[in-house]
Amino acid sequence: MIRDAVDDDWTQIYPIFAAVVEAGETYAFPEGLSADEARPWWMDQSSGRTVVAAEGDLVLGSAKMGPNRPGRGAHIGTASFMIDVRQRGRGIGRALAVHMIEWSRQQGFAGIQFNAVVETNLAAVALWTSLGFAIVGTVPGAFDHASQGRVGLHVMYLEL
Amino acid sequence: MIRDAVDDDWTQIYPIFAAVVEAGETYAFPEGLSADEARPWWMDQSSGRTVVAAEGDLVLGSAKMGPNRPGRGAHIGTASFMIDVRQRGRGIGRALAVHMIEWSRQQGFAGIQFNAVVETNLAAVALWTSLGFAIVGTVPGAFDHASQGRVGLHVMYLEL
Repeated sequence: MIRDAVDDDWTQIYPIFAAVVEAGETYAFPEGLSADEARPWWMDQSSGRTVVAAEGDLVLGSAKMGPNRPGRGAHIGTASFMIDVRQRGRGIGRALAVHMIEWSRQQGFAGIQFNAVVETNLAAVALWTSLGFAIVGTVPGAFDHASQGRVGLHVMYLEL
Repeated sequence: MIRDAVDDDWTQIYPIFAAVVEAGETYAFPEGLSADEARPWWMDQSSGRTVVAAEGDLVLGSAKMGPNRPGRGAHIGTASFMIDVRQRGRGIGRALAVHMIEWSRQQGFAGIQFNAVVETNLAAVALWTSLGFAIVGTVPGAFDHASQGRVGLHVMYLEL
Protein backbone atom coordinates (compact mmCIF):
# COMPACT_ATOMS: atom_id res chain seq x y z
CA MET A 1 0.00 0.00 0.00
CA ILE A 2 2.95 2.37 0.64
CA ARG A 3 5.59 2.49 -2.09
CA ASP A 4 8.17 4.85 -3.60
CA ALA A 5 6.57 7.48 -5.79
CA VAL A 6 7.29 7.29 -9.51
CA ASP A 7 7.13 10.17 -12.01
CA ASP A 8 3.69 9.14 -13.23
CA ASP A 9 2.25 9.49 -9.73
CA TRP A 10 2.59 13.26 -9.92
CA THR A 11 -0.58 13.57 -12.00
CA GLN A 12 -2.48 12.18 -9.00
CA ILE A 13 -0.39 13.78 -6.26
CA TYR A 14 -0.60 17.30 -7.70
CA PRO A 15 -4.39 17.72 -7.22
CA ILE A 16 -3.99 16.52 -3.61
CA PHE A 17 -1.09 18.96 -3.11
CA ALA A 18 -2.99 21.83 -4.73
CA ALA A 19 -6.13 21.23 -2.65
CA VAL A 20 -4.18 21.07 0.62
CA VAL A 21 -2.23 24.27 -0.14
CA GLU A 22 -5.37 26.02 -1.42
CA ALA A 23 -7.25 25.20 1.80
CA GLY A 24 -4.66 27.31 3.64
CA GLU A 25 -4.88 25.46 6.92
CA THR A 26 -1.78 23.30 7.19
CA TYR A 27 1.18 24.21 4.93
CA ALA A 28 3.21 27.31 4.15
CA PHE A 29 3.97 26.39 0.56
CA PRO A 30 3.75 28.91 -2.29
CA GLU A 31 0.17 29.24 -3.48
CA GLY A 32 -1.20 28.96 -6.99
CA LEU A 33 1.63 26.80 -8.33
CA SER A 34 1.10 24.95 -11.59
CA ALA A 35 1.80 21.22 -11.71
CA ASP A 36 5.25 21.88 -13.19
CA GLU A 37 6.07 24.56 -10.64
CA ALA A 38 4.89 22.47 -7.70
CA ARG A 39 6.69 19.29 -8.73
CA PRO A 40 10.14 20.21 -7.35
CA TRP A 41 8.54 21.15 -4.00
CA TRP A 42 7.38 17.58 -3.58
CA MET A 43 8.99 15.14 -6.00
CA ASP A 44 12.58 16.24 -6.56
CA GLN A 45 14.57 14.98 -3.62
CA SER A 46 18.33 15.32 -3.91
CA SER A 47 18.45 13.18 -0.79
CA GLY A 48 15.61 11.32 0.85
CA ARG A 49 12.54 10.08 -0.97
CA THR A 50 8.86 10.58 -1.79
CA VAL A 51 6.33 7.81 -1.21
CA VAL A 52 2.65 7.33 -1.96
CA ALA A 53 -0.08 5.47 -0.14
CA ALA A 54 -2.02 3.78 -2.93
CA GLU A 55 -4.98 1.45 -3.34
CA GLY A 56 -4.36 -0.27 -6.66
CA ASP A 57 -3.79 2.58 -9.10
CA LEU A 58 -5.42 5.19 -6.87
CA VAL A 59 -3.10 7.49 -4.91
CA LEU A 60 -4.63 8.32 -1.51
CA GLY A 61 -1.83 10.40 -0.09
CA SER A 62 1.87 11.11 -0.25
CA ALA A 63 4.81 11.81 2.02
CA LYS A 64 8.31 13.09 1.46
CA MET A 65 11.11 12.45 3.89
CA GLY A 66 14.84 13.00 4.23
CA PRO A 67 17.43 15.07 6.11
CA ASN A 68 16.10 18.24 7.70
CA ARG A 69 19.30 20.17 6.99
CA PRO A 70 22.45 19.62 4.95
CA GLY A 71 25.93 19.23 6.37
CA ARG A 72 26.17 19.18 10.15
CA GLY A 73 22.40 18.94 10.53
CA ALA A 74 21.88 15.99 8.20
CA HIS A 75 21.59 13.41 11.01
CA ILE A 76 18.10 14.71 11.85
CA GLY A 77 15.28 13.76 9.51
CA THR A 78 12.10 15.56 8.56
CA ALA A 79 8.98 14.79 6.56
CA SER A 80 5.82 16.28 5.05
CA PHE A 81 2.47 14.63 4.41
CA MET A 82 -0.48 15.30 2.15
CA ILE A 83 -3.64 13.23 2.21
CA ASP A 84 -6.51 13.39 -0.29
CA VAL A 85 -9.27 15.24 1.58
CA ARG A 86 -11.77 12.64 0.35
CA GLN A 87 -9.73 9.91 2.06
CA ARG A 88 -9.39 11.51 5.49
CA GLY A 89 -10.20 9.51 8.59
CA ARG A 90 -9.02 6.22 7.11
CA GLY A 91 -5.70 6.18 8.93
CA ILE A 92 -3.66 6.97 5.83
CA GLY A 93 -1.72 9.74 7.55
CA ARG A 94 -0.88 7.43 10.42
CA ALA A 95 0.21 4.64 8.08
CA LEU A 96 2.48 7.03 6.18
CA ALA A 97 3.86 8.40 9.44
CA VAL A 98 4.66 4.96 10.84
CA HIS A 99 6.32 4.08 7.55
CA MET A 100 8.36 7.30 7.66
CA ILE A 101 9.52 6.74 11.24
CA GLU A 102 10.60 3.19 10.46
CA TRP A 103 12.45 4.32 7.32
CA SER A 104 14.17 7.14 9.23
CA ARG A 105 15.30 4.71 11.91
CA GLN A 106 16.66 2.30 9.29
CA GLN A 107 18.52 5.18 7.62
CA GLY A 108 20.24 5.93 10.91
CA PHE A 109 18.71 9.33 11.62
CA ALA A 110 19.12 10.32 15.27
CA GLY A 111 15.75 12.05 15.40
CA ILE A 112 12.93 13.54 13.34
CA GLN A 113 12.08 17.22 13.42
CA PHE A 114 8.93 18.86 12.10
CA ASN A 115 9.66 22.52 11.55
CA ALA A 116 6.19 23.94 11.17
CA VAL A 117 3.14 22.09 12.51
CA VAL A 118 0.16 24.46 12.50
CA GLU A 119 -1.10 24.58 16.08
CA THR A 120 -4.76 24.55 15.04
CA ASN A 121 -4.20 21.35 13.03
CA LEU A 122 -5.28 19.32 16.04
CA ALA A 123 -5.50 16.04 14.14
CA ALA A 124 -1.86 16.32 13.12
CA VAL A 125 -0.68 17.42 16.56
CA ALA A 126 -2.57 14.51 18.14
CA LEU A 127 -1.14 12.06 15.60
CA TRP A 128 2.46 13.18 16.13
CA THR A 129 2.03 13.20 19.90
CA SER A 130 0.60 9.68 19.83
CA LEU A 131 3.69 8.57 17.91
CA GLY A 132 6.02 10.04 20.52
CA PHE A 133 6.75 13.50 19.14
CA ALA A 134 7.04 16.34 21.65
CA ILE A 135 6.43 20.05 21.06
CA VAL A 136 9.84 21.70 21.38
CA GLY A 137 8.42 25.19 21.07
CA THR A 138 5.84 27.30 19.26
CA VAL A 139 6.54 30.35 17.12
CA PRO A 140 3.58 32.65 17.80
CA GLY A 141 1.46 33.78 14.87
CA ALA A 142 3.84 32.36 12.29
CA PHE A 143 1.11 30.83 10.08
CA ASP A 144 -1.60 32.87 8.37
CA HIS A 145 -4.52 30.44 8.61
CA ALA A 146 -7.18 30.89 5.94
CA SER A 147 -10.06 31.17 8.43
CA GLN A 148 -8.43 31.63 11.84
CA GLY A 149 -5.83 34.27 11.02
CA ARG A 150 -2.37 34.15 12.52
CA VAL A 151 -1.79 31.02 14.56
CA GLY A 152 1.36 29.45 15.93
CA LEU A 153 3.71 26.94 14.32
CA HIS A 154 4.99 24.14 16.52
CA VAL A 155 8.47 22.71 16.20
CA MET A 156 8.06 19.02 17.07
CA TYR A 157 10.73 16.41 17.66
CA LEU A 158 11.04 12.66 18.09
CA GLU A 159 14.29 11.07 19.23
CA LEU A 160 14.96 7.78 17.45
CA MET B 1 29.23 50.71 5.66
CA ILE B 2 26.29 48.32 5.12
CA ARG B 3 25.01 48.11 1.54
CA ASP B 4 23.31 45.71 -0.84
CA ALA B 5 25.65 43.02 -2.12
CA VAL B 6 26.52 43.11 -5.80
CA ASP B 7 27.71 40.20 -7.93
CA ASP B 8 31.36 41.23 -7.65
CA ASP B 9 31.20 40.95 -3.85
CA TRP B 10 30.96 37.18 -4.08
CA THR B 11 34.71 36.84 -4.64
CA GLN B 12 35.19 38.32 -1.15
CA ILE B 13 32.13 36.76 0.51
CA TYR B 14 32.91 33.21 -0.62
CA PRO B 15 36.16 32.85 1.40
CA ILE B 16 34.29 34.12 4.49
CA PHE B 17 31.44 31.67 3.80
CA ALA B 18 33.84 28.77 3.19
CA ALA B 19 35.82 29.46 6.37
CA VAL B 20 32.70 29.67 8.53
CA VAL B 21 31.23 26.46 7.10
CA GLU B 22 34.60 24.68 7.29
CA ALA B 23 34.97 25.60 10.98
CA GLY B 24 31.86 23.53 11.62
CA GLU B 25 30.70 25.47 14.64
CA THR B 26 27.78 27.60 13.55
CA TYR B 27 26.03 26.62 10.30
CA ALA B 28 24.49 23.49 8.82
CA PHE B 29 25.29 24.31 5.21
CA PRO B 30 26.65 21.73 2.77
CA GLU B 31 30.40 21.39 3.18
CA GLY B 32 33.11 21.59 0.55
CA LEU B 33 31.10 23.70 -1.89
CA SER B 34 32.95 25.46 -4.68
CA ALA B 35 32.37 29.19 -5.16
CA ASP B 36 29.85 28.47 -7.92
CA GLU B 37 28.02 25.84 -5.88
CA ALA B 38 27.90 28.02 -2.77
CA ARG B 39 26.70 31.16 -4.53
CA PRO B 40 22.98 30.27 -4.69
CA TRP B 41 23.03 29.40 -0.96
CA TRP B 42 23.94 32.98 -0.16
CA MET B 43 23.50 35.35 -3.11
CA ASP B 44 20.46 34.23 -5.10
CA GLN B 45 17.42 35.53 -3.28
CA SER B 46 14.13 35.20 -5.10
CA SER B 47 12.73 37.42 -2.36
CA GLY B 48 14.66 39.31 0.26
CA ARG B 49 18.22 40.52 -0.13
CA THR B 50 21.89 40.02 0.66
CA VAL B 51 23.97 42.81 2.16
CA VAL B 52 27.62 43.30 3.00
CA ALA B 53 29.35 45.24 5.73
CA ALA B 54 32.29 46.87 3.98
CA GLU B 55 35.15 49.20 4.76
CA GLY B 56 35.99 50.82 1.48
CA ASP B 57 36.48 47.92 -0.93
CA LEU B 58 37.01 45.37 1.84
CA VAL B 59 34.07 43.11 2.71
CA LEU B 60 34.05 42.37 6.46
CA GLY B 61 30.90 40.31 6.65
CA SER B 62 27.60 39.58 4.97
CA ALA B 63 23.98 38.91 5.85
CA LYS B 64 21.02 37.59 3.92
CA MET B 65 17.46 38.28 4.94
CA GLY B 66 13.93 37.71 3.72
CA PRO B 67 10.79 35.68 4.39
CA ASN B 68 11.34 32.56 6.49
CA ARG B 69 8.72 30.60 4.57
CA PRO B 70 6.70 31.07 1.39
CA GLY B 71 2.94 31.48 1.19
CA ARG B 72 1.16 31.64 4.55
CA GLY B 73 4.42 31.89 6.44
CA ALA B 74 5.87 34.80 4.46
CA HIS B 75 4.99 37.45 7.07
CA ILE B 76 7.80 36.18 9.32
CA GLY B 77 11.35 37.08 8.35
CA THR B 78 14.62 35.28 8.86
CA ALA B 79 18.30 36.02 8.32
CA SER B 80 21.79 34.51 8.29
CA PHE B 81 25.10 36.18 9.06
CA MET B 82 28.73 35.44 8.26
CA ILE B 83 31.59 37.56 9.56
CA ASP B 84 35.22 37.34 8.48
CA VAL B 85 36.97 35.56 11.37
CA ARG B 86 39.75 38.15 11.21
CA GLN B 87 37.21 40.91 11.86
CA ARG B 88 35.47 39.38 14.88
CA GLY B 89 34.91 41.47 17.99
CA ARG B 90 34.49 44.73 16.07
CA GLY B 91 30.71 44.77 16.36
CA ILE B 92 30.14 43.91 12.71
CA GLY B 93 27.64 41.17 13.54
CA ARG B 94 25.70 43.55 15.74
CA ALA B 95 25.70 46.27 13.08
CA LEU B 96 24.39 43.81 10.46
CA ALA B 97 21.79 42.52 12.91
CA VAL B 98 20.50 45.98 13.77
CA HIS B 99 20.35 46.77 10.04
CA MET B 100 18.44 43.54 9.39
CA ILE B 101 15.91 44.18 12.15
CA GLU B 102 15.25 47.69 10.90
CA TRP B 103 14.87 46.50 7.29
CA SER B 104 12.51 43.71 8.39
CA ARG B 105 10.38 46.21 10.30
CA GLN B 106 10.23 48.53 7.29
CA GLN B 107 9.22 45.61 5.08
CA GLY B 108 6.29 44.92 7.37
CA PHE B 109 7.38 41.56 8.72
CA ALA B 110 5.49 40.65 11.90
CA GLY B 111 8.49 38.96 13.47
CA ILE B 112 11.90 37.43 12.80
CA GLN B 113 12.62 33.75 13.31
CA PHE B 114 16.02 32.11 13.48
CA ASN B 115 15.56 28.43 12.77
CA ALA B 116 18.87 27.01 13.90
CA VAL B 117 21.10 28.90 16.33
CA VAL B 118 23.81 26.56 17.61
CA GLU B 119 23.47 26.56 21.39
CA THR B 120 27.23 26.57 21.95
CA ASN B 121 27.58 29.72 19.81
CA LEU B 122 27.32 31.83 22.96
CA ALA B 123 28.32 35.06 21.24
CA ALA B 124 25.43 34.73 18.81
CA VAL B 125 22.93 33.72 21.48
CA ALA B 126 24.01 36.67 23.63
CA LEU B 127 23.77 39.05 20.67
CA TRP B 128 20.27 37.91 19.68
CA THR B 129 19.11 38.00 23.29
CA SER B 130 20.44 41.53 23.73
CA LEU B 131 18.43 42.56 20.67
CA GLY B 132 15.22 41.14 22.13
CA PHE B 133 15.11 37.64 20.64
CA ALA B 134 13.81 34.86 22.87
CA ILE B 135 14.59 31.16 22.69
CA VAL B 136 11.34 29.49 21.61
CA GLY B 137 12.75 26.00 22.00
CA THR B 138 15.83 23.88 21.47
CA VAL B 139 16.06 20.75 19.32
CA PRO B 140 18.46 18.49 21.23
CA GLY B 141 21.59 17.31 19.46
CA ALA B 142 20.50 18.65 16.09
CA PHE B 143 23.92 20.12 15.18
CA ASP B 144 27.08 18.05 14.80
CA HIS B 145 29.64 20.51 16.17
CA ALA B 146 33.18 20.02 14.85
CA SER B 147 34.75 19.83 18.31
CA GLN B 148 31.87 19.44 20.76
CA GLY B 149 29.83 16.77 19.01
CA ARG B 150 26.05 16.89 18.93
CA VAL B 151 24.70 20.07 20.46
CA GLY B 152 21.26 21.66 20.36
CA LEU B 153 19.81 24.11 17.85
CA HIS B 154 17.75 26.96 19.25
CA VAL B 155 14.73 28.35 17.48
CA MET B 156 14.76 32.06 18.35
CA TYR B 157 12.10 34.70 17.71
CA LEU B 158 11.65 38.43 17.88
CA GLU B 159 8.23 40.04 17.52
CA LEU B 160 8.38 43.29 15.54
